[in-house]
Amino acid sequence: MGLFTKDIKTMNDLFVHQLQDIYYAEKQLVKALPKMAEKATDKQLKQGFLTHLDETRTHVQRLEEIFRMHGAEVKAVDCPAIDGIIDEADDVAGEIADKAVLDAAPSTLRRPPSTMRSPATAA
Amino acid sequence: MGLFTKDIKTMNDLFVHQLQDIYYAEKQLVKALPKMAEKATDKQLKQGFLTHLDETRTHVQRLEEIFRMHGAEVKAVDCPAIDGIIDEADDVAGEIADKAVLDAAPSTLRRPPSTMRSPATAA
Repeated sequence: MGLFTKDIKTMNDLFVHQLQDIYYAEKQLVKALPKMAEKATDKQLKQGFLTHLDETRTHVQRLEEIFRMHGAEVKAVDCPAIDGIIDEADDVAGEIADKAVLDAAPSTLRRPPSTMRSPATAA
Repeated sequence: MGLFTKDIKTMNDLFVHQLQDIYYAEKQLVKALPKMAEKATDKQLKQGFLTHLDETRTHVQRLEEIFRMHGAEVKAVDCPAIDGIIDEADDVAGEIADKAVLDAAPSTLRRPPSTMRSPATAA
């Protein structure tokens, strides 16, 4: 995507852009969730992160399938939203001294990637 | 919050930190929503942004009230998550050539600040 050109011209361009955006977000989550699981001390919370990781890996595969079905290149575009969400989770975790308090902190898990619904709505 | 000190020691510290975080996010939204309303061409969408702006202003007032009720200073802390979400909305809007396609793009509106629930859960 260029800085001075408007590259999204049609609803199809927007659909593919959203797919690329979500693809990036899910892949970033695949990297972030194991670190969150490692930081969690509560057993159930730790397991929650790991289950979410498995589901996220499935999302990545499904997105790759959708790219192929749609005849589009499997590609990710930067998604500042998920970067910000993950940065925030890291920042807050870094500020917390007590493990039990850390377990109670809001995590990426509680920020559902609601753009997930958008391409489906647009399609 | 210090870079080398862990400032969140208790559940109360976490609660106040989350209040400050949401307060920042809501205030950023109060700035961002009028711009989104301006960019929207669909009348209903434009009105949706403006209604959301009114609601967000009420959230800011309610948060100020909660700070006072809790005996905490009314203060905002940087929230990289909302910054990322707003950046992304701006980026995507900048890439879209067609007004009707722009109206269909996911917006901040569809990313509910789900941390809103966390302090209530923690309290």
